[in-house]
Amino acid sequence: MKLKAGILGATGMVGQRFIELLEGHPYFEVASVMASERSAGKKYNEAAKWYLAGEIPEKIADMEVDLIDVKSVRENKLDLIFSAIPAEIAREAEASFAKEVPLFSNTKTYRMDDDVPLLIGDVNPEHLDMVQKQKKNRNWNGYIVTNPNCTTIAFVIPLKPIMDGFGIDWVNVTSMQALSGAGYDGVPSMAILDNLIPFIGGEEEKVELEPLKILGALSGGKVKNAEFSICASCNRVPVLDGHIVVVVAGLKKKFEVDDVKNALKKYKSEPQKLKLPSAPDPTIVVRDEENRPQPRLDRMVGNGMATTVGRIAKKREGVLRFTCLSHNTIRGAAGASVLNAELAYKKKLL
Amino acid sequence: MKLKAGILGATGMVGQRFIELLEGHPYFEVASVMASERSAGKKYNEAAKWYLAGEIPEKIADMEVDLIDVKSVRENKLDLIFSAIPAEIAREAEASFAKEVPLFSNTKTYRMDDDVPLLIGDVNPEHLDMVQKQKKNRNWNGYIVTNPNCTTIAFVIPLKPIMDGFGIDWVNVTSMQALSGAGYDGVPSMAILDNLIPFIGGEEEKVELEPLKILGALSGGKVKNAEFSICASCNRVPVLDGHIVVVVAGLKKKFEVDDVKNALKKYKSEPQKLKLPSAPDPTIVVRDEENRPQPRLDRMVGNGMATTVGRIAKKREGVLRFTCLSHNTIRGAAGASVLNAELAYKKKLL
Amino acid sequence: MKLKAGILGATGMVGQRFIELLEGHPYFEVASVMASERSAGKKYNEAAKWYLAGEIPEKIADMEVDLIDVKSVRENKLDLIFSAIPAEIAREAEASFAKEVPLFSNTKTYRMDDDVPLLIGDVNPEHLDMVQKQKKNRNWNGYIVTNPNCTTIAFVIPLKPIMDGFGIDWVNVTSMQALSGAGYDGVPSMAILDNLIPFIGGEEEKVELEPLKILGALSGGKVKNAEFSICASCNRVPVLDGHIVVVVAGLKKKFEVDDVKNALKKYKSEPQKLKLPSAPDPTIVVRDEENRPQPRLDRMVGNGMATTVGRIAKKREGVLRFTCLSHNTIRGAAGASVLNAELAYKKKLL
Amino acid sequence: MKLKAGILGATGMVGQRFIELLEGHPYFEVASVMASERSAGKKYNEAAKWYLAGEIPEKIADMEVDLIDVKSVRENKLDLIFSAIPAEIAREAEASFAKEVPLFSNTKTYRMDDDVPLLIGDVNPEHLDMVQKQKKNRNWNGYIVTNPNCTTIAFVIPLKPIMDGFGIDWVNVTSMQALSGAGYDGVPSMAILDNLIPFIGGEEEKVELEPLKILGALSGGKVKNAEFSICASCNRVPVLDGHIVVVVAGLKKKFEVDDVKNALKKYKSEPQKLKLPSAPDPTIVVRDEENRPQPRLDRMVGNGMATTVGRIAKKREGVLRFTCLSHNTIRGAAGASVLNAELAYKKKLL
Repeated sequence: MKLKAGILGATGMVGQRFIELLEGHPYFEVASVMASERSAGKKYNEAAKWYLAGEIPEKIADMEVDLIDVKSVRENKLDLIFSAIPAEIAREAEASFAKEVPLFSNTKTYRMDDDVPLLIGDVNPEHLDMVQKQKKNRNWNGYIVTNPNCTTIAFVIPLKPIMDGFGIDWVNVTSMQALSGAGYDGVPSMAILDNLIPFIGGEEEKVELEPLKILGALSGGKVKNAEFSICASCNRVPVLDGHIVVVVAGLKKKFEVDDVKNALKKYKSEPQKLKLPSAPDPTIVVRDEENRPQPRLDRMVGNGMATTVGRIAKKREGVLRFTCLSHNTIRGAAGASVLNAELAYKKKLL
Repeated sequence: MKLKAGILGATGMVGQRFIELLEGHPYFEVASVMASERSAGKKYNEAAKWYLAGEIPEKIADMEVDLIDVKSVRENKLDLIFSAIPAEIAREAEASFAKEVPLFSNTKTYRMDDDVPLLIGDVNPEHLDMVQKQKKNRNWNGYIVTNPNCTTIAFVIPLKPIMDGFGIDWVNVTSMQALSGAGYDGVPSMAILDNLIPFIGGEEEKVELEPLKILGALSGGKVKNAEFSICASCNRVPVLDGHIVVVVAGLKKKFEVDDVKNALKKYKSEPQKLKLPSAPDPTIVVRDEENRPQPRLDRMVGNGMATTVGRIAKKREGVLRFTCLSHNTIRGAAGASVLNAELAYKKKLL
Repeated sequence: MKLKAGILGATGMVGQRFIELLEGHPYFEVASVMASERSAGKKYNEAAKWYLAGEIPEKIADMEVDLIDVKSVRENKLDLIFSAIPAEIAREAEASFAKEVPLFSNTKTYRMDDDVPLLIGDVNPEHLDMVQKQKKNRNWNGYIVTNPNCTTIAFVIPLKPIMDGFGIDWVNVTSMQALSGAGYDGVPSMAILDNLIPFIGGEEEKVELEPLKILGALSGGKVKNAEFSICASCNRVPVLDGHIVVVVAGLKKKFEVDDVKNALKKYKSEPQKLKLPSAPDPTIVVRDEENRPQPRLDRMVGNGMATTVGRIAKKREGVLRFTCLSHNTIRGAAGASVLNAELAYKKKLL
Repeated sequence: MKLKAGILGATGMVGQRFIELLEGHPYFEVASVMASERSAGKKYNEAAKWYLAGEIPEKIADMEVDLIDVKSVRENKLDLIFSAIPAEIAREAEASFAKEVPLFSNTKTYRMDDDVPLLIGDVNPEHLDMVQKQKKNRNWNGYIVTNPNCTTIAFVIPLKPIMDGFGIDWVNVTSMQALSGAGYDGVPSMAILDNLIPFIGGEEEKVELEPLKILGALSGGKVKNAEFSICASCNRVPVLDGHIVVVVAGLKKKFEVDDVKNALKKYKSEPQKLKLPSAPDPTIVVRDEENRPQPRLDRMVGNGMATTVGRIAKKREGVLRFTCLSHNTIRGAAGASVLNAELAYKKKLL
């Protein structure tokens, strides 16, 4: 018997990825697709502008879109929720669901709340424990687990073994981010063809803050943020999917390139050890070619869940440079939530 | 009476820009277009795959392409040479011309030679004096003046007033470079559509070294390199023209954003003071909008000779971030050489 | 003394082209920029998302945007109107202005009205006479002159000398249309990168109908449509500006390729004879190279007002094929209206 | 026991598709990868610039590339050959192999030879019989079967049921072809970004001729070409994979749109009946949406072997218009050859 999942914001780009990733999932099945009034009441295939290759899964295509309303939990006997709703409505809407059942959210709203885990299954699985305190604090039956911004995810995964092995003093990141990160209608073609845009609203703030919580130590139910500085510059480029991040980091220990490569290659975390269905193994793919990673060639590695790292160099003593890539709507969004839910399932939190 | 100029490598992309920029020039006129054996003997419009908007200037279209050979200097009574030939053949070929007449080169070969100026008219015009010693050293009638790599040019111009005003400890640059920088056939469309390539052969080495010579102090006919470290990561993106460079710099003095903006806005150098024909004025355009510079919108500012700077921010105490753009085949190549020749002309070195 | 022009829909893409084309115009000056309530009351440079290269003309940048309201005619002493407003509001709004002053419209609404000229200055200048009857019919002080759809314009100009010289039985056109034709936000980048869309709403209907009115004979103040069939297939491709149309036509007379080339090359119409400021001369540019016209290389020929024709071939006896290009927001929109107004000016209709 | 296949031109784009399609094939396995001297002797993963998503199949990656030489047939005990070599060398090279074993070729060289089938498994499977006469004529142990040009394949498949049901008088096709059709280095990015090229060398000639042989009747071992005229205009657009063809056809019988849709939907041919491993079923996918087919969304339907048809319209009495799409390097090249070989296998010709 699979657990019944509801999807909030099911017609958008991340919502579509949820549907794609949950098709044939061994633990979960989609039992309710929820969206705003514009879509509610229509069949899913009429409400959604499906942008993924391949057809809408047949069962979903004919499903009626429900309004985003907690009534759906009882009506459809939902066991958990995946959320990809706009931040503006998330504080209230997500809470209303989390009172009833666990909710796994892509939305930024709750990420920095003290009792909410900002979770990457492969990086800080132990932070999932925070939900116990959260339930108590808030007197909820469910809880909220968030995953970080797609750009954060792309470079925090390789930063984890680097921090563990060498210590980090400071990090400078420059991103080249894909169009899908802005939503289907987010970037007009007139704006980006033969062009790039050196700015993404709100992104640098998230990228400079979220990694410190993720890489922080949990103690007494609270996260003590990691203590290094991050300087981020975020850019939009004409690529469909896959965020590239160029990382330059000052490390505490001396290192050689091969030390870093080895640390990245051998990195395993809970999802790999528990063989979670969506866990990429390896979670970090190191490429030795001088011209990789490339978005079109590498974004689907590990079914879109692996992080590809290349151009590893010691730029001067103690200064590491690498370029990494992950799929922003899979690893960086829907897939991250699904992996978090899988971890919760295995930890008996579902 | 205009001085007669010969162009080496006249059929390539930078060669075409030379022709475009010298059309109607007040000091210089094109008297010989030179290229390799493949093109020599043909009419220019048959030899060149003209890629610029607009037609080939009529006079040039019908000109016969000469072989790259110093005989052309006498046959065509050339007064100066512009060079955009491949590095592999430049050491010998450029020297053979420089024995006779001044030569202004885009090619990297002579850039780091002790007695050769690596010149950006707007940054280190005083380095032009080095040619006196060079002529003596080498016993040449002419001399070689080089201009830097197109990516170097894009960010060294704004770095100059910043160094002068605040001092520089270290610089981290991440470039997003246009396709034209690789030559017309350099990047296959299959390689770059819906993609980017996080590597450009030999580029990071140049970008990490050249600025230190350009920003160095001339003393006793020699340059003492500037003393700060540069860490460069160079990327190719699907943009036709215009290199974007994201710069993060540690400055020696405390600063506020407005201090930096003012220093950039008021910056003037010799070319502006001498009102050289190709000098942009201002040479640095500061944009306050959060989403500028953009290659397609800003690359032609100042006829492709200005540098646009935006996204100026104090990222933490003493750490400056800005994003800059310049046109890689105009400001970053042919236009840089032409401006250098104009400076030499005004300084009575032609 | 220049005539004072008002622009309806001044902040949109065609509106911006009007501003660009009227900058420094010898007959007309912009005296009012009008737009919807969303923009009215703001300064133009705050209301418009300027997408053209170069800056907004200084005088316009600071102008306050007026609401689209006929009061502006009196307040600003307007002599004529250029309109680029949405079809939904055009019937009422354009009429309200045309009661007062002549109006030159890009909008489709009035194009097929019996007493309204569907005018291309270079094709059917004699149709301008229809405005006399129109004024009487409608009891207006002004009148409406429309120009056709941008795709129609691209191929009707070369069809005119072909019809005159050889007669036309049928025409098949397949267009590959630029993104700007759909407006700035019209085509999301996610929809068109590495893709094309084989459909443009409402376009084929216009393209199959408008040319017959334009090429029709005016007699007794009425147009008798040309009598041949047009079959159109319209496609959107990832090109910023410039519509390409592949035309295959069955001609009444036998022809050789050179006959057609000559007819196209020597074609001149009223705007060329009157040397109107926006008239391209030649209006048709014939290219003999096998791989032209190309949008990026040829769209700005004649300042964006010329039509480039290539790939002229006799496909079988009596069947002609050619490929033509014109700039869809200049020749195909704002420039067409301006040229029509220039013609009216010279004909003492302003 | 699988039959052993050799691939000629194994490092190129079509060669790579052969390797991809034969990975895990039930009838065939790759036993030799052959290429020119430039690649021969290297390991495949060093010789090939792999451009497909995913890695090179492990077994192939380590295989040594053989020189294109018939010795390979004996040395590697090859049972059949797939060829994707340049036309210039094909007449001699393909014949040398076909003397020994059956050869299935993408190359144009033998397509129009009287005794060589120009075969699309889904269209004219009966033409395969021609190989009997060919073997006798040429005194070969093997034979050559060719498949058509990729653009021809895209529209001949839907033309077959239309011809059968309604008769064809004339056809006008306008193609918008993907970059991969020109080979990896075929179209420089500088040539095609923000652009299209209205010409593809040699393409229109093939497209106007090949369908007539394919749709011709076999009688007495010879093909009598179909008798209708084709007018083709071929264009290159910035799309990675997937050729779109807009077809306008004059039919002999009156029709309504639904008649055509039904004929297309119910069409089945030998590969479907024999359930060949690479046969798409259905082979023609009819889309009712007004904006399909689109290359990025539809090219992988049926694993890249189906043809998607949309925009079916009666443009006037007797005149049909539709737009079709197929994957040019799968259905239009390697996949076509593999399907032909599968048919030969089932017909006991291997």
